[in-house]
Amino acid sequence: MKMDMIIQNANVYNSFTQSFSKKDVAIKDGQFVYIADRIRNNNTLCIDVKGRYMIPALVDIHMHIESSMSIPTRFSDAVLPLGTTTVVADPHEIANVFGLEGIQAYMSSASALDIFYGIPSSVPSTNEKLETTGGKIGIEEIEELLRDPRIICLGEVMNFHDVCYEPNSLSANIIKTCKKIRSDLPIEGHCPKVSGEELAMFIANGVNADHTQQTSQSVIEKIESGMFLEIQRKSMTPDVMKTLINNQYYEYFAFVTDDVMADKLTKGHLNELVIKAVEMGMPFEKALYCATFTPARRMHLEDRGAIAPGRIADFIILNDTTTFSIDAVYKNGKIVEKESQTISFPEHFYHSIKCNKAIQSNFMIPLQGKKAKVNVMAIEEHSTFTKHEQVEMNIDNGFLNFDGYCLLTVFERYGKNGNIAHAIVKNALKKQGAIATSWAHDHHNVIVLGNNTKDMMIAQHTLIDMQGGYVVVSEGKVIATVQLEIGGIVSERPIEILGEELKQVRNAMEELGYRHDNVIMSCSTLSLPVSPELKISDVGMINTRKQCIVPLVEEIYDN
Amino acid sequence: MKMDMIIQNANVYNSFTQSFSKKDVAIKDGQFVYIADRIRNNNTLCIDVKGRYMIPALVDIHMHIESSMSIPTRFSDAVLPLGTTTVVADPHEIANVFGLEGIQAYMSSASALDIFYGIPSSVPSTNEKLETTGGKIGIEEIEELLRDPRIICLGEVMNFHDVCYEPNSLSANIIKTCKKIRSDLPIEGHCPKVSGEELAMFIANGVNADHTQQTSQSVIEKIESGMFLEIQRKSMTPDVMKTLINNQYYEYFAFVTDDVMADKLTKGHLNELVIKAVEMGMPFEKALYCATFTPARRMHLEDRGAIAPGRIADFIILNDTTTFSIDAVYKNGKIVEKESQTISFPEHFYHSIKCNKAIQSNFMIPLQGKKAKVNVMAIEEHSTFTKHEQVEMNIDNGFLNFDGYCLLTVFERYGKNGNIAHAIVKNALKKQGAIATSWAHDHHNVIVLGNNTKDMMIAQHTLIDMQGGYVVVSEGKVIATVQLEIGGIVSERPIEILGEELKQVRNAMEELGYRHDNVIMSCSTLSLPVSPELKISDVGMINTRKQCIVPLVEEIYDN
Repeated sequence: MKMDMIIQNANVYNSFTQSFSKKDVAIKDGQFVYIADRIRNNNTLCIDVKGRYMIPALVDIHMHIESSMSIPTRFSDAVLPLGTTTVVADPHEIANVFGLEGIQAYMSSASALDIFYGIPSSVPSTNEKLETTGGKIGIEEIEELLRDPRIICLGEVMNFHDVCYEPNSLSANIIKTCKKIRSDLPIEGHCPKVSGEELAMFIANGVNADHTQQTSQSVIEKIESGMFLEIQRKSMTPDVMKTLINNQYYEYFAFVTDDVMADKLTKGHLNELVIKAVEMGMPFEKALYCATFTPARRMHLEDRGAIAPGRIADFIILNDTTTFSIDAVYKNGKIVEKESQTISFPEHFYHSIKCNKAIQSNFMIPLQGKKAKVNVMAIEEHSTFTKHEQVEMNIDNGFLNFDGYCLLTVFERYGKNGNIAHAIVKNALKKQGAIATSWAHDHHNVIVLGNNTKDMMIAQHTLIDMQGGYVVVSEGKVIATVQLEIGGIVSERPIEILGEELKQVRNAMEELGYRHDNVIMSCSTLSLPVSPELKISDVGMINTRKQCIVPLVEEIYDN
Repeated sequence: MKMDMIIQNANVYNSFTQSFSKKDVAIKDGQFVYIADRIRNNNTLCIDVKGRYMIPALVDIHMHIESSMSIPTRFSDAVLPLGTTTVVADPHEIANVFGLEGIQAYMSSASALDIFYGIPSSVPSTNEKLETTGGKIGIEEIEELLRDPRIICLGEVMNFHDVCYEPNSLSANIIKTCKKIRSDLPIEGHCPKVSGEELAMFIANGVNADHTQQTSQSVIEKIESGMFLEIQRKSMTPDVMKTLINNQYYEYFAFVTDDVMADKLTKGHLNELVIKAVEMGMPFEKALYCATFTPARRMHLEDRGAIAPGRIADFIILNDTTTFSIDAVYKNGKIVEKESQTISFPEHFYHSIKCNKAIQSNFMIPLQGKKAKVNVMAIEEHSTFTKHEQVEMNIDNGFLNFDGYCLLTVFERYGKNGNIAHAIVKNALKKQGAIATSWAHDHHNVIVLGNNTKDMMIAQHTLIDMQGGYVVVSEGKVIATVQLEIGGIVSERPIEILGEELKQVRNAMEELGYRHDNVIMSCSTLSLPVSPELKISDVGMINTRKQCIVPLVEEIYDN
């Protein structure tokens, strides 16, 4: 047999026995071709790894590249050295901004990483009456995308209600279209807290995976109902991990990263979840199986996920399994090195923030009367959910006095209608300041959060000048920014630089007194109209369970 | 939730935990929709199964309908009551006779059974120089078939040599075509006794399953190399079963039937393998998993193989798991009943045996000299392989004297070239008689095996009059026949009738002294040019390992 390379004296992971043994591994044309106790060949490059561990490279089947605020080319540079060589990306954010053109621009981007795509199934996340987006993905776009072999699943279907109760809804029709054109296409779901008969309905309608936060009980119910679970970091509670381990559910779940921001990404990717799983008591051999074999199989990527003949030679040489200390990462049988790749997006992707610069009155709520009962979004420190509260506030000089709270103003930014909407937010900033961002899930309009007009003006103006990103202002001064010049949501700058800037933004927000496990995610999901309980779009505040607009002011009192 | 039917008080098998528990199961539109401890609904048909076992119906992913000498409609009637509701058929035999038209005729046949198809990958099994067939399946036919969603795999690739060493061969190109058009198409293989570097090459070239007879060692090697194993009855030796059980290989194999003849089929199908597996020590819950869930998953049939929301409501109510005693079988949520289906094949399918009636000289081997060293096919009692022996025989009156042996004469029957070929066979008939058949793998030319000219003539003539089938003649009389009027290989008569006739043929062959575990399979594979060691086609005897013609007479001695 002809070979290009032999890895000798490796402690090789076998996915089918989920165990290690001493082997030589031959590689040809970027594939593993032969694994045996001893392979010797005089004319072939031999690499003696001296007993180190050789494992399949990691496969991440539920993630969003835009969560890193980056583009495929840069994302690839960041994660390959961490051992991830295949991802299935759901380009949900870029689709909200640029629609099909955005997805195709991502799919055309050069990357050494193998990037497959799921079709974003909820763009917009609700509908045009509840939010304005730059793009939308309808049946026509789905049909077009399904023709591309790099599309390998339908991305997270969120709209449980429409799927189950509205057979003529867009969500229901998207699933039908997928099943008609590609009957075995995996259909990914997003169904936190759905259970019992409703969960059964959701699954019966075709959705057979879920990546949201699990409990021990939801893990058991979903797996026993035939769902494939995608376990992300926030699901890795002691209870959930105990359930996965004790029930030996290893065939029915995979670890996934979902959202990893630029500053976190420089530290680790899927490898970190494997380390964490092992720390929490899962055998390394099993955790690895669920970060390589089961995710590949779930996505019908049967050409990878194991070190076996015919599979793509994506692998990692590890010094140590416990710490996942990486000696080298190989992609298609070649060691991963930084390559310069051309970045090319359409010119108009760099000029996408089309709202006007704010004027003072944009940040003031004129009201007649003495007091108002206001619907308030209360931030929860450990969740991206908010609570809906009602608070009585004074009306001073004809304007709502929201002292002690923050104002959140949303500016429609696609140049479509100029909508402006307001919310009052509890538990945001404690010090004088403002935050502005266009990285505002999922519609990515411009949102400005602050407690005084001046800082909010500065933040919004700076953001527009940058054509998108994150801006933090404290007492009249811009104290941190990250520019996201492509569509206002991602940047072409290398991840390390982006990560450094983002860390500064994060610190600056915390300095203003924002308290949350992830201040950026918290702030950027205040605008997510499908995440409980009260959120805001350019159209107004939204009761996300009832999917209806909630007025800022519930009632006005004249005394 | 709306429901059509509720199965109450069932001991329901959960594929994901591989265990039973007491549940109610709701069904709607032919799908399972909800499984819970208790489901009550006044307006729905309720069936109280009183604690009986409810299991997913069986899924057989490697089989040939033609092995039952039957057609889809009849086969469906035979296996549905035995609990098999889905098969993946490789219509290899009908393709050898009628090519693409034969496959399409099968695919158009009505059946309540869900029949998916694999593309026959080796039609002809060798090439036109070594055998004459009625049809062939080339790249054009493959491309045409791949457009049909009922095609879900490439059928057993046999030609190990071409796949591994001849990148421009038809076999290699067929695999490339499949991968290009449907990158995740399962590619089924046939690789008995291939191991080590050669096995790795076969797999590396894309073949990732094998259904041939296994040993304990081959099971370990193939599974560890990433192959999916399809375990048929002959692989179920104590050693192999022990290996599967002790290594807990349950995720990586399925039980399959491959070839079940009409007379065996009336007794059982895949259900019999489950019973046998349990008898051999495999837990019922695991054996069932490998006859339902793993085969469905292997074929990406994720809409079945488990009792779970959204899956097709194909299930069995069992009285008892050990004996697999069936109370009822449901297909798409409806109890299986005999339905009259229309049978319709093209008229010319019934007139396909186009060779001439034999004359005496067709069964005589004229030779000059005194003795001849003859290449002999020796039948092995427990195998379809033959041994290649060389025997010295007398030449009497200018003709080879094969006393104590049988003559096997092959008549090309597609009206293409009129080829006639001869072999001498050891260990065939002990009494005076002859057997003629057109059910002769894979080329299905007419073969006549006998020890005297008269009986061989009668057998051949009767076979042509019947337009195909099996004929057994003893001392001048036809003692058993089964007519296979469609393409000379299958019949449209019900399986029970066919089975009864076939049993008589089998008995008649045994009466003539043919000794074999399966006399019909033995006789019908004497013509299979890819099965070791020496076989015969219309072109001549074939050394099946070297893929070359072997002369009948090796050497002639004048004294």
